[in-house]
Amino acid sequence: MVTPLRGRDELDCAGLERLVEHLVGGGINALFILGTTGEGPGLSYRLRRELVERTCRQVRGRVPVLVGITDTAFIESVNLARHALSSGANALVLAPPYYLPGGQPELQEYLEHLVPELPLPLMLYNMPALTKVNYEAELVRRCLDDPRIIGLKDSSGNMIYFHQMLGLIRRRPDWCLLVGPEELLAESVLAGGHGGITGGANLFPQLYVRLYEAAAAGDLNRAQQLHRLVMQVSNSLYHIGRHPSAVLKGIKCGLACLGICDDFMAEPFHRFRAEERARVQKHTVDLQAAIASLVPTANQQPRVAGTVPRAPEANRAVH
Amino acid sequence: MVTPLRGRDELDCAGLERLVEHLVGGGINALFILGTTGEGPGLSYRLRRELVERTCRQVRGRVPVLVGITDTAFIESVNLARHALSSGANALVLAPPYYLPGGQPELQEYLEHLVPELPLPLMLYNMPALTKVNYEAELVRRCLDDPRIIGLKDSSGNMIYFHQMLGLIRRRPDWCLLVGPEELLAESVLAGGHGGITGGANLFPQLYVRLYEAAAAGDLNRAQQLHRLVMQVSNSLYHIGRHPSAVLKGIKCGLACLGICDDFMAEPFHRFRAEERARVQKHTVDLQAAIASLVPTANQQPRVAGTVPRAPEANRAVH
Amino acid sequence: MVTPLRGRDELDCAGLERLVEHLVGGGINALFILGTTGEGPGLSYRLRRELVERTCRQVRGRVPVLVGITDTAFIESVNLARHALSSGANALVLAPPYYLPGGQPELQEYLEHLVPELPLPLMLYNMPALTKVNYEAELVRRCLDDPRIIGLKDSSGNMIYFHQMLGLIRRRPDWCLLVGPEELLAESVLAGGHGGITGGANLFPQLYVRLYEAAAAGDLNRAQQLHRLVMQVSNSLYHIGRHPSAVLKGIKCGLACLGICDDFMAEPFHRFRAEERARVQKHTVDLQAAIASLVPTANQQPRVAGTVPRAPEANRAVH
Amino acid sequence: MVTPLRGRDELDCAGLERLVEHLVGGGINALFILGTTGEGPGLSYRLRRELVERTCRQVRGRVPVLVGITDTAFIESVNLARHALSSGANALVLAPPYYLPGGQPELQEYLEHLVPELPLPLMLYNMPALTKVNYEAELVRRCLDDPRIIGLKDSSGNMIYFHQMLGLIRRRPDWCLLVGPEELLAESVLAGGHGGITGGANLFPQLYVRLYEAAAAGDLNRAQQLHRLVMQVSNSLYHIGRHPSAVLKGIKCGLACLGICDDFMAEPFHRFRAEERARVQKHTVDLQAAIASLVPTANQQPRVAGTVPRAPEANRAVH
Repeated sequence: MVTPLRGRDELDCAGLERLVEHLVGGGINALFILGTTGEGPGLSYRLRRELVERTCRQVRGRVPVLVGITDTAFIESVNLARHALSSGANALVLAPPYYLPGGQPELQEYLEHLVPELPLPLMLYNMPALTKVNYEAELVRRCLDDPRIIGLKDSSGNMIYFHQMLGLIRRRPDWCLLVGPEELLAESVLAGGHGGITGGANLFPQLYVRLYEAAAAGDLNRAQQLHRLVMQVSNSLYHIGRHPSAVLKGIKCGLACLGICDDFMAEPFHRFRAEERARVQKHTVDLQAAIASLVPTANQQPRVAGTVPRAPEANRAVH
Repeated sequence: MVTPLRGRDELDCAGLERLVEHLVGGGINALFILGTTGEGPGLSYRLRRELVERTCRQVRGRVPVLVGITDTAFIESVNLARHALSSGANALVLAPPYYLPGGQPELQEYLEHLVPELPLPLMLYNMPALTKVNYEAELVRRCLDDPRIIGLKDSSGNMIYFHQMLGLIRRRPDWCLLVGPEELLAESVLAGGHGGITGGANLFPQLYVRLYEAAAAGDLNRAQQLHRLVMQVSNSLYHIGRHPSAVLKGIKCGLACLGICDDFMAEPFHRFRAEERARVQKHTVDLQAAIASLVPTANQQPRVAGTVPRAPEANRAVH
Repeated sequence: MVTPLRGRDELDCAGLERLVEHLVGGGINALFILGTTGEGPGLSYRLRRELVERTCRQVRGRVPVLVGITDTAFIESVNLARHALSSGANALVLAPPYYLPGGQPELQEYLEHLVPELPLPLMLYNMPALTKVNYEAELVRRCLDDPRIIGLKDSSGNMIYFHQMLGLIRRRPDWCLLVGPEELLAESVLAGGHGGITGGANLFPQLYVRLYEAAAAGDLNRAQQLHRLVMQVSNSLYHIGRHPSAVLKGIKCGLACLGICDDFMAEPFHRFRAEERARVQKHTVDLQAAIASLVPTANQQPRVAGTVPRAPEANRAVH
Repeated sequence: MVTPLRGRDELDCAGLERLVEHLVGGGINALFILGTTGEGPGLSYRLRRELVERTCRQVRGRVPVLVGITDTAFIESVNLARHALSSGANALVLAPPYYLPGGQPELQEYLEHLVPELPLPLMLYNMPALTKVNYEAELVRRCLDDPRIIGLKDSSGNMIYFHQMLGLIRRRPDWCLLVGPEELLAESVLAGGHGGITGGANLFPQLYVRLYEAAAAGDLNRAQQLHRLVMQVSNSLYHIGRHPSAVLKGIKCGLACLGICDDFMAEPFHRFRAEERARVQKHTVDLQAAIASLVPTANQQPRVAGTVPRAPEANRAVH
């Protein structure tokens, strides 16, 4: 979930409420806040805590809430984890510390020290493009022995790695293996993955939920049809800016065009100017129409998932 | 300066006092805290503030204190900058936000927004291996127009970039261009650079101060002689570990061997085990002897520098 | 297809004959020689020509033969292409020049100059890990206007790129989009890709042919079952060496274990020593058994494909 | 030395004669042909052989000629090496095979097999940006035991690596350690390096020869003065194109502006168009004037060096 902002260090509270309802109403099975798309590391700790509280309050247990606690400082991860528990969140998500990258044995030791300090179950978050390091196979293998670690979100974009992980986790049937880039949602679920955490679901939750369902059901034609719409979202909205921030800017701008929330961004990033916004506006309208023709709105009722995040069923199609 | 720690989130206060005296007594011209070698991003904000206070108090104005405020969250940089002012620090140091890397125009805008919020002069910190982005020539050129920005520390290890920066900054004679990797201190000062921020100066401050002085005076033979010792420090102490943390571990372990401070490290990193420590111990003794034969101890009196960090003279040979 | 060698600059002619029969008999739909797995750039031009001749002669038109002409020197690509025609080959395969990487407009101009000099249809070969450059979307879009260019083999391992290519090529239904890493064969064909060029098919051609067929037919269960065997090949045979050559060494050593051809390698690489070979031997036997239980040998009759390489049907499941 | 071309696969013979005289007359101490700036890998083998012959004939032993034999195919390196001997060349230069990168033990074994086949002394060529691999310290250390290997050209641009090499080679005082990027010539020679292979010396050989001499003599002021001109060459001529080919294009275009040789380039590259050429023309004139004011033409007499390439004196300031 993106973090709706009204200004520097200021939450867009009304936008947040609308966004949560848009997502829960769109059928998503869980909410992940303070990830990359949520601009987690770009927010002050005060605002992160406020976001956790307000999101949990708005969600009211209808879906599990997962909170990103990735940090370069051990203590700050623990502090935020405790706040997540007291706010009513259900699980935590952790990428490796992202300044000086740790070697695999260092990351192993880090997890061995950190996990006992955490009051909620943990999902690993593999994001090598930003953290400069992978959770490699040997490390994941060891994590399977720890019941407090319940899954892995892989945002590497490397499907060979994903298939290796699928092979590894077979001995922990309760583990949840989710994919990051939404362009890979279809194939990863067809291959046995448990869902995706997809930025575009902020805009069009039904599309991603339906795609997940079609792939999980083995309905290849339907999955291909919906996957092509996902590629259309990606091709039209995510390549307007020239920098790595382009995806975030496209999503936030699209949400503003849909009237859901403000598109203010945490610095060093700034919202699109008028010209780019006009392109996003046009694409968003086109995408809405294309999606509406394939995804009947009758199915837009909220699909309440359980509150136990460790059950793979409950985590699927997290956005 | 490394950050002496006694435990997780606990400063080694006595070690900090000894280290500051070791450095000021060793003739360094300024202190940079909360940089990469200082494990800045790995420390809790509480501990960062405590370190700033205690360091400034211990230094008592004998040399300028520069405080690293690099952060992924704008507000946290500003908060720490304000704390630095109130603690009596003299300047700030800033690498780009290091999670999702900004494009050059985004970094430009970021600086335009951030610098007016900072209550102290700012030195840029180029550290592409960890931030995934350079302060490129065009951006630095624009920064030269802002009197609040007073210099650049380049830790890229790329001397072609360094020479381009030397050319650029000629129109700001008050700017200070410092080099990061200590293996490049000699040549960068011979080429016209203003000094270095060198991790090894934690251990052997005189060596780096003398090398800086020899190079700044154009004494080529002396500079080469001392540079070879610097290479010996690097070759013996910085390659014992196999991960990027090897340099930090070598320095902190060497300081413990010298009886200056504890070698506890901020997680995800951990001090060397007994076997590596024995190697560091041996190398440290050998290096001390080699340095003592070239750097007479009579010269070890503190060299008090002025308190105005913007004067290049005052910033030189910062460690 | 690997290039069977008996010594430095010496073809293993009997091994080559056995290998061609093993592959054609295994049902592959086309042969690609002088690619990365074929050690093309590591062979002398004399040996490359001999290989082209002998392969075409042995194949006798039963399947199309595609010849890699990737080179850093324009003229050498043209020379080899002419030799391919005169030897009876059917198409050419070209990665970008791989020493100093060209920019996209430079590669565009290169293709505009090279393609008219080529006497056979051309398939592009995207291999950024080795050529340091991608055939990017805009360049591929322009290539679609040239009827002499008939397809793209993507060995980037980047499925997002692959999906973008799938979208692009819709207006050239005669184009053939093949995938490189065999671990991605299942999902790329399920997504609409036309097949794969898979190193492991040297060892177990039926496995890859059957997987292609199952995926092309939309038989998800069967495709998953066979894909898991492909992952087993990859996990057991391709990670024994520690260097990028590990895949090649595993395949060649496996072929030697199967009694098909020598495992001599073009320098700078060398065959596995006894210890690694023993591991490959064991894995190969295990894999044979696992594959035999899923892929009935009754289906091992050669599946003769047409000789027109531009028809997607004919190119599918090239190994 | 660049390779003057008149067309695809056609040497500019008159241009080659003028270029050789320009360089030998400019005081260079040796000639390196078929390197990166010489577009070696982009030329047909026929043209490479012709270039070796014509260059040796034109040089007439006035300076040593070093021939690049870098190749992906072992046999082709050997063949070119033999041709170099029979043409009268003095030494060979070899970067690692540059398609599938070898691991360090593989490169070690490669050198152990290749060097005995070479009829001339060999200089290693470290060029990781293009070969994707370094000659690492351990490998270089072993090469010091082989009297047939006589030096290393380091084009990594990494001065920390260069200093490590300087330390390593002390036990082979006959070894020659040269630097690649001309922007690093001054500091590498001041640090004890033996010279440089500098693309800009094609245009302005005296500048680089005088800079080498000033640095080798420890004349810091003069070296800085000339180094600033070298930076001016780099800043004005090498950044006009946007791709990695920009340096080559700038040099070849400059040579055409000086009337020395044609600027035709080996594909996939093409000469600058009129607009870029006009900028090169202007910069070249400006640079000529700036250089003339610092480097008196009276010193432009050829400085004949010995013919024994293994003596460090003879290899210095190779361009």
